[in-house]
Amino acid sequence: MQKILFVISDGIPDRPIRELGNKTPLEVAKTPNLDRIAVDGISGMMHTVDIGVRPGSDTAHLSLFGYDPHDCYTGRGPYECAGIGMQVNAGDVAFRANAGTVDEQGIVTDRRAGRIESTRDVIDALGKITISGVEFDLQPSLAHRIGLVIRGKNLSPNISDQDPHKTDVPVHTVKPLDHTPEAKFTADVMNQFTKLTVEKLSNSPFNRKRKESGKLPANIVLFRGAGSIPHDLLSFKDKYNLRAAFIAGGPMYRGIAKILGMTVAEFAPSDGVTGLPNSNLDAKVRRALELLPDYDIIFVHFKAADSLAEDGNFRGKIEFIEKIDRAIKPLAERNDFITVITADHTTACGLKTHTADPVPVTIKGEGVRTDDINAYTERECAKGRLGTIRGQNLMPILIDLMGLAELYGA
Amino acid sequence: MQKILFVISDGIPDRPIRELGNKTPLEVAKTPNLDRIAVDGISGMMHTVDIGVRPGSDTAHLSLFGYDPHDCYTGRGPYECAGIGMQVNAGDVAFRANAGTVDEQGIVTDRRAGRIESTRDVIDALGKITISGVEFDLQPSLAHRIGLVIRGKNLSPNISDQDPHKTDVPVHTVKPLDHTPEAKFTADVMNQFTKLTVEKLSNSPFNRKRKESGKLPANIVLFRGAGSIPHDLLSFKDKYNLRAAFIAGGPMYRGIAKILGMTVAEFAPSDGVTGLPNSNLDAKVRRALELLPDYDIIFVHFKAADSLAEDGNFRGKIEFIEKIDRAIKPLAERNDFITVITADHTTACGLKTHTADPVPVTIKGEGVRTDDINAYTERECAKGRLGTIRGQNLMPILIDLMGLAELYGA
Repeated sequence: MQKILFVISDGIPDRPIRELGNKTPLEVAKTPNLDRIAVDGISGMMHTVDIGVRPGSDTAHLSLFGYDPHDCYTGRGPYECAGIGMQVNAGDVAFRANAGTVDEQGIVTDRRAGRIESTRDVIDALGKITISGVEFDLQPSLAHRIGLVIRGKNLSPNISDQDPHKTDVPVHTVKPLDHTPEAKFTADVMNQFTKLTVEKLSNSPFNRKRKESGKLPANIVLFRGAGSIPHDLLSFKDKYNLRAAFIAGGPMYRGIAKILGMTVAEFAPSDGVTGLPNSNLDAKVRRALELLPDYDIIFVHFKAADSLAEDGNFRGKIEFIEKIDRAIKPLAERNDFITVITADHTTACGLKTHTADPVPVTIKGEGVRTDDINAYTERECAKGRLGTIRGQNLMPILIDLMGLAELYGA
Repeated sequence: MQKILFVISDGIPDRPIRELGNKTPLEVAKTPNLDRIAVDGISGMMHTVDIGVRPGSDTAHLSLFGYDPHDCYTGRGPYECAGIGMQVNAGDVAFRANAGTVDEQGIVTDRRAGRIESTRDVIDALGKITISGVEFDLQPSLAHRIGLVIRGKNLSPNISDQDPHKTDVPVHTVKPLDHTPEAKFTADVMNQFTKLTVEKLSNSPFNRKRKESGKLPANIVLFRGAGSIPHDLLSFKDKYNLRAAFIAGGPMYRGIAKILGMTVAEFAPSDGVTGLPNSNLDAKVRRALELLPDYDIIFVHFKAADSLAEDGNFRGKIEFIEKIDRAIKPLAERNDFITVITADHTTACGLKTHTADPVPVTIKGEGVRTDDINAYTERECAKGRLGTIRGQNLMPILIDLMGLAELYGA
């Protein structure tokens, strides 16, 4: 059985950029290794969620893993929380949260509490919280970020955000988004939680200290992205009977992989795997090849092209694409496994955000019906004989290439 | 109105094969007639069931005929039974069955009762069987094979196989696969049937005679592939208002056509239509052309490329493809009807089984928007302007080409 090395380069596809002579960063970058994989494989275009759907990173990754986000995705919270090592079980509701600052009228004056360095003190000041039988679990994430998971009976993720997503407006009252008693109950509990955090934090010694040293108080927990994990969510192992490993720096990506029960590779700080443009991509590829004997499919995620595009930095994006190309050289040279090269979504430097444009996808391996595409770019792969597929088609195609697809019929 | 001659070459598509210089049998075979049809027609690729779905022969053919197997397919039994001339009505449950051998502990020691030549004696020894009001109809098929249809009230095809599909293991107890009383009742009846066949056959005179002559006794009826025909299944005639004829050697294929109400051509043994590599393909094509005045669409099925690929015999597959090519010469030469050239699924010599890779499809006829494809192969047709379609798309395309499609709207 051929194994699979599956490379996800976050947001590397783009739109033609006027300053680049109407070429895309992928078209301008020198990528001999990506192109060699295109020469040796079959290429096509992929709508990770569906035609015209602009995917988030979370829904795009679920789709790439073969899950229909319409069935299993309610919000980003669970993936962020799992990504920082929190336990998220079916029935829990999880949120992305920030330590923020409100004034006495409840107006949000800073969504990051003056870019607070750590939320450890905030969480300690809140202590153990239980509201109407619902237990609150808060864990510090990077800087102002907090993971928030609530556990109890009759909870629903179908509630609105309290975080207004901007400053100089009041904190939002959480509203149920459907007519179930669970949504109403959860919204009530979360509104009580808002009130409680402001009360507890406003008078806390650490905030007095922050004010004394001229810093903004961290006097509210802003939360958004309520989500839960469906009770019937199949693990990747149960869905495909494949041993999967996942290699990424970013917590959210790691969280999705953890929730699906994949092995998520850990790196020491000295490995330099940062999720930033300076990240050590070679270390990731090296780890992937080390893990290959013990796993059937290994996903490697490269983050920074997306972040650079969201800054509109197309020169930086070109440089990072060339860095990816150097890192994946062993995949261009080796033919003892199936290589998949693709992306989760397009990130357009011009718009500084994700777009719904399809992403190029190339598959190389024994048994592949190769085509005559010789460059991994948006406009070359669109001529490839794999045609146009959806994100959810990719795993079934790979499973069949491995010779493991179930026969439908007899 | 143009008529249609629709050629299904079972399993002729393949994957690139290393020993063939990474070409497929279709790419290596000399096929001037198939290629001429590609030159004169429009080509594309077709997922007979869906992208990444590995089709059985039964589900693939239902899809080619424009039926959604998810709606109408429950198991292969009805098609096998109808193929040997048995009556299968809505409400019946039909099985593929074998005369087999079990020891006194109920362990299957041979799934074909020592390759018994005929099951006539087995069926006679069983006599008329009725269990809990359910009537059993058994008919001999080739060698060890038996057609089994049960008739009665409240039957369900949603039960597991009793045949363990291998030897040296006990016969399986049939289990209901859903929670309906019908599935439970049917499973109970079939478990009683197993017990009864072993009791009746173990002490039968013909098995004493087999033992005396050193042969394995045929002392159990092994069964699998329970299926039924939905009450609302439209005949091909009712679905399309076309008179259809079907030409094939294999019983299962003939069974599907019979269940859909097509005319199934009969051949005399002297015609040499065997479904094997030695089959007389010219006789099939000749018959198709003879039937053309009386029918609107004629399907011709060539079997052996699939069987050869399942043996991994790519040289034999190439030879058989060239034999198909010679047989369809009249279709390459004639332009007074629509010719369709396609396959039910890919059969990969490397894996010796069906795969989900799409199959090439070419349509030639008046009104076709031709393209520049000049070879009927997996990798050439993938560049064709028909694009990538599903099996269920093909009949509507043909109906429209004939000028018979219903207007949607006004």
